[in-house]
Amino acid sequence: MSPNAIDRLVALLSKLPGVGKKSASRMAYHILDGESSYAHALADELSSLHRSVFRCGVCGGFTETDPCPICSDPGRDTSVICVVERAQDLRIIEESREFHGVFHVLGGLIAPLEGIGPGDLAIGKLIERIKPDVTEIILALNPTVEGDTTALYLHKVLKDFSVEVTRLASGLPVGGDLEYTDRITLSRSFRGRVKI
Amino acid sequence: MSPNAIDRLVALLSKLPGVGKKSASRMAYHILDGESSYAHALADELSSLHRSVFRCGVCGGFTETDPCPICSDPGRDTSVICVVERAQDLRIIEESREFHGVFHVLGGLIAPLEGIGPGDLAIGKLIERIKPDVTEIILALNPTVEGDTTALYLHKVLKDFSVEVTRLASGLPVGGDLEYTDRITLSRSFRGRVKI
Repeated sequence: MSPNAIDRLVALLSKLPGVGKKSASRMAYHILDGESSYAHALADELSSLHRSVFRCGVCGGFTETDPCPICSDPGRDTSVICVVERAQDLRIIEESREFHGVFHVLGGLIAPLEGIGPGDLAIGKLIERIKPDVTEIILALNPTVEGDTTALYLHKVLKDFSVEVTRLASGLPVGGDLEYTDRITLSRSFRGRVKI
Repeated sequence: MSPNAIDRLVALLSKLPGVGKKSASRMAYHILDGESSYAHALADELSSLHRSVFRCGVCGGFTETDPCPICSDPGRDTSVICVVERAQDLRIIEESREFHGVFHVLGGLIAPLEGIGPGDLAIGKLIERIKPDVTEIILALNPTVEGDTTALYLHKVLKDFSVEVTRLASGLPVGGDLEYTDRITLSRSFRGRVKI
């Protein structure tokens, strides 16, 4: 009973992650109630998105230039490669300003139940990048079953190379509470305890 | 450090209601990871939205034809006008299939603190619509301070016309629990109690 254009917009918006039919409807009416300039700006960005943003030929991250600004930055330490699951993980690590090496995007994690094996990930490309000057490979994978499986697999594959393979520490989140920490996280933070 | 196109898209998406920077970022990467056809479909809907959808000259609801499908439907009961705050409220009422009359969108509620007075609402247009065949005006306004104020004001303005002015019942939501009902809702449901 509402205009078809709104229904179509709601149907499209509700395909976004974390957006149900109610929120999609709220968004659609918000856009309609607002200035048309906003709708046009969003439309312009969306229509040019896949043309202007693509995968970096070296690391696999999203970029508007090839190679990406990180891979082509002479100030980055190319002896340390940080392996991430998805391109968006790269953004989060960059925002922490903790890491000054280069990245490698796997494009997923090993998940046999979903039919994702090592062959589906950019592991061959990672091995090609292990030049003599590479000293460490940091696995910045989620501490989940899939992340653990993938880390173990990579550890096995990479042990023939003279690189150190490390993984991000797992433990209590800063600001967290012992009382609300699950058993596995707690046991990991015990095993990984550090001297003060 | 991430591509500018993604940053611009994230900035625009985070202006949507209920969307913070994290969810906007998640949406942007979801769109990027997905088919470009989805991004283009969304872009097309957004760019044509304000051109194809406008306000109905009679009721003020959103429509693609003027008058809107409801106002031009000979099957609707034009003797009952349901007054709503916003055009999106009309959609919710239509979905309940409870009401078969026509609508009138006020375009807001009286809110002195926000500087919104009766003159800012489509009240004059509502009065113009009270033809001799109109018998009832249902105020479907939110049971809030602003909704109550607006309902009282409309009641005063409309008492010179030979129409019955009613308001949606306020009380316990179906499936609700007495224990978790606030005092005001409970007292309203007592005052509005019905014979069984």
